[in-house]
Amino acid sequence: MIEIVSIGAELLTGQTVNTNASAISKALLKRGFGVSHVTTVPDHHNSMKRAIEEAMNRASVVITTGGLGPTGDDITRITLAEIFGKKLVYDENVAAELERRYGKELETLADQATVIEGAHVIPNPLGTAPGFILKKEEKTVIVLPGVPVQMQEMLEKSVIPYLEETQKRHLFEHAVYLFLMSEQHVDPFLRSLEAKNPKVEFGICPSYGTLSIYLRAQAQSKEEAEERFAPILFALREKFKHRIFSEKHHDIEYAVHEQFIARGLTLACAESCTGGRIASRLTKISGCSDYFLGSLVTYSNHMKTTVLGVKPETLNTHGAVSRETVIEMVLGTLSLSSADYALAVSGIAGPTGGTEEKPVGTVWGAIGHKRGDVFAGLLSLKGTRKRSTLIEYSATYLLSHLWRYIQFDIPPFEGS
Amino acid sequence: MIEIVSIGAELLTGQTVNTNASAISKALLKRGFGVSHVTTVPDHHNSMKRAIEEAMNRASVVITTGGLGPTGDDITRITLAEIFGKKLVYDENVAAELERRYGKELETLADQATVIEGAHVIPNPLGTAPGFILKKEEKTVIVLPGVPVQMQEMLEKSVIPYLEETQKRHLFEHAVYLFLMSEQHVDPFLRSLEAKNPKVEFGICPSYGTLSIYLRAQAQSKEEAEERFAPILFALREKFKHRIFSEKHHDIEYAVHEQFIARGLTLACAESCTGGRIASRLTKISGCSDYFLGSLVTYSNHMKTTVLGVKPETLNTHGAVSRETVIEMVLGTLSLSSADYALAVSGIAGPTGGTEEKPVGTVWGAIGHKRGDVFAGLLSLKGTRKRSTLIEYSATYLLSHLWRYIQFDIPPFEGS
Repeated sequence: MIEIVSIGAELLTGQTVNTNASAISKALLKRGFGVSHVTTVPDHHNSMKRAIEEAMNRASVVITTGGLGPTGDDITRITLAEIFGKKLVYDENVAAELERRYGKELETLADQATVIEGAHVIPNPLGTAPGFILKKEEKTVIVLPGVPVQMQEMLEKSVIPYLEETQKRHLFEHAVYLFLMSEQHVDPFLRSLEAKNPKVEFGICPSYGTLSIYLRAQAQSKEEAEERFAPILFALREKFKHRIFSEKHHDIEYAVHEQFIARGLTLACAESCTGGRIASRLTKISGCSDYFLGSLVTYSNHMKTTVLGVKPETLNTHGAVSRETVIEMVLGTLSLSSADYALAVSGIAGPTGGTEEKPVGTVWGAIGHKRGDVFAGLLSLKGTRKRSTLIEYSATYLLSHLWRYIQFDIPPFEGS
Repeated sequence: MIEIVSIGAELLTGQTVNTNASAISKALLKRGFGVSHVTTVPDHHNSMKRAIEEAMNRASVVITTGGLGPTGDDITRITLAEIFGKKLVYDENVAAELERRYGKELETLADQATVIEGAHVIPNPLGTAPGFILKKEEKTVIVLPGVPVQMQEMLEKSVIPYLEETQKRHLFEHAVYLFLMSEQHVDPFLRSLEAKNPKVEFGICPSYGTLSIYLRAQAQSKEEAEERFAPILFALREKFKHRIFSEKHHDIEYAVHEQFIARGLTLACAESCTGGRIASRLTKISGCSDYFLGSLVTYSNHMKTTVLGVKPETLNTHGAVSRETVIEMVLGTLSLSSADYALAVSGIAGPTGGTEEKPVGTVWGAIGHKRGDVFAGLLSLKGTRKRSTLIEYSATYLLSHLWRYIQFDIPPFEGS
């Protein structure tokens, strides 16, 4: 098995979320390598040393991230040299490469060209700190920098090819992603499948309006694992026919992205309470300009009127959070964008601004097509209280209703 | 010291990022409690048991998250009962409370009302799984569910008051946040301060266009720590006068939020390549409607024209990514929103769409005031290649230039 040791004081003060550990786990699992344990320690000599040694006792491969930069608080190299009983030496090749890319004036050149004697150097095409592969008897330690983009590039280019050559694949996963369902409605069915398939491990994980089902199996090959997954997948696809939006991407925005591009459709949005979150989720995906035209984030009532043409009477009579307003928002968006589909959302994300009649969590959505069909409905957000959660759920629900409408012709907001 | 054990297979497959560990660390550090170690293990009996026992050997307080829900893969309670040599028992009080809130028909009631004998039960006001406090000699294990909103509520309402009553405060931190600076330019000065202040630990952490400097000290009280930080803070504030935007919030959007509200100003945006990310970052903060009017995410050229009034000749002659286009975007936004300030951004976020003349990373920004002043400039994004990184940097830079302009009257895009 493989373990990760994440190094950095900032990971233990909550200032930085440990995204590296999950990025590594995800990339490795895709290739059949499971991560069994993650340890996070500060960049203090003793904690690091103990954590790396303990991980080496449990696992055959240990990947460390962090503590390789040139700044004063980075002492990973020194600690590793000690663990492996090696010296730190100046590496002419690393120095020459750094000089070529950054010039002689790079202040940290001498520091960054200092490597662990005998280590295999992993080049860092996006930064100054190289990585290392260290071996001692049956144990391998792979040392990567903590800056996520650099780490990821080195993982994909150097570490994964190295693992594929030297390690046996052993763990495989298949995920199924559902929307507009709650964990309680899926769990009993999963338990029954689990009882019939003892060699497959089941996981279920809700996340802001979607539900992920994970199947995992220890196997020698991908084919062997897939054979075990097959009857389970057949049952799940049958049972949750109109609830499965993907078996590839956790986020509904990928399904929307692929759907719109495959069908040659275009989309525009009008957002109030989600404040650009829908647009931001859609546009994080490269190639979105092929279908996504824009999103008019009209937070003020004034902009709802000047930009989208929502009538002041509508706002006065029904309020900004109402069926009438979101319908006018959709119509305004369709007209400004010439999109095939438009969606609109307006609600009270809180924590303030709620009233008895319209409490925090009251969110209206609308979906319209250029030929004139418009649907509107209240989203199901009872009991959700936190602002960021409400925004995330609203975005996910809107995109889910849109995708399901186009995919299965199920009218949006039904049974939501 | 305190350790965290995060439990859940999904944390080791990369499907879920371990945000709980950082949220706990952050909340504890604010009260003077340091977290020394985080272990992440799957919800397998043996791994969990070993991880919790190892953590109990090292630390006096261990906080676990995850594995308390009613679904089949949750076995934290069983494992903890074993570690503490206790039985699982049905708790009438917990059952009565669940019935009061969810009704008799709650399928998981019997399961969720089963607690570890002798444990102090922590109520979960937002979910069905209660938490526990377990004690054995000098060791305390605090057991929380993995759902972030539930965990956080229980942490603030029950766990922190308990720790404040039973544990000594020992670690304090002060952060200083800078923008428009690189690590290399700050590090030598920090090293010189570090040499003069051996009882303070220094950390530096770059993150998408901002730079965080952390000072940490072991101390008996907040006052003692602050006394040690004082001369360092004095030196930093002097040296980086126009680069420090906050000593409170890591994210520049909080500084903008506070600045605009304090000065009674309003803001609207026009976004192309950032795709709503600026709006999304601003609107995640409660109360933003006091100054934020909206953001017109015009991804297509057509919408730049129909919504913002950018002239088709401008787009044809100079392209969507140009000084001329962002200036017209700002002017259109000022007029539609009646905001005091507007900003606009248009660029090539990649990975496709770059040309020799305008490679990926070419991002134009503009900032304008309703009285007519408009500034435009190219953002400094050389070498940044990843789409999400480019979007994040662009948003941070734009907001940084805006805040600095209003705060210090330094013209935007100078020296960027």
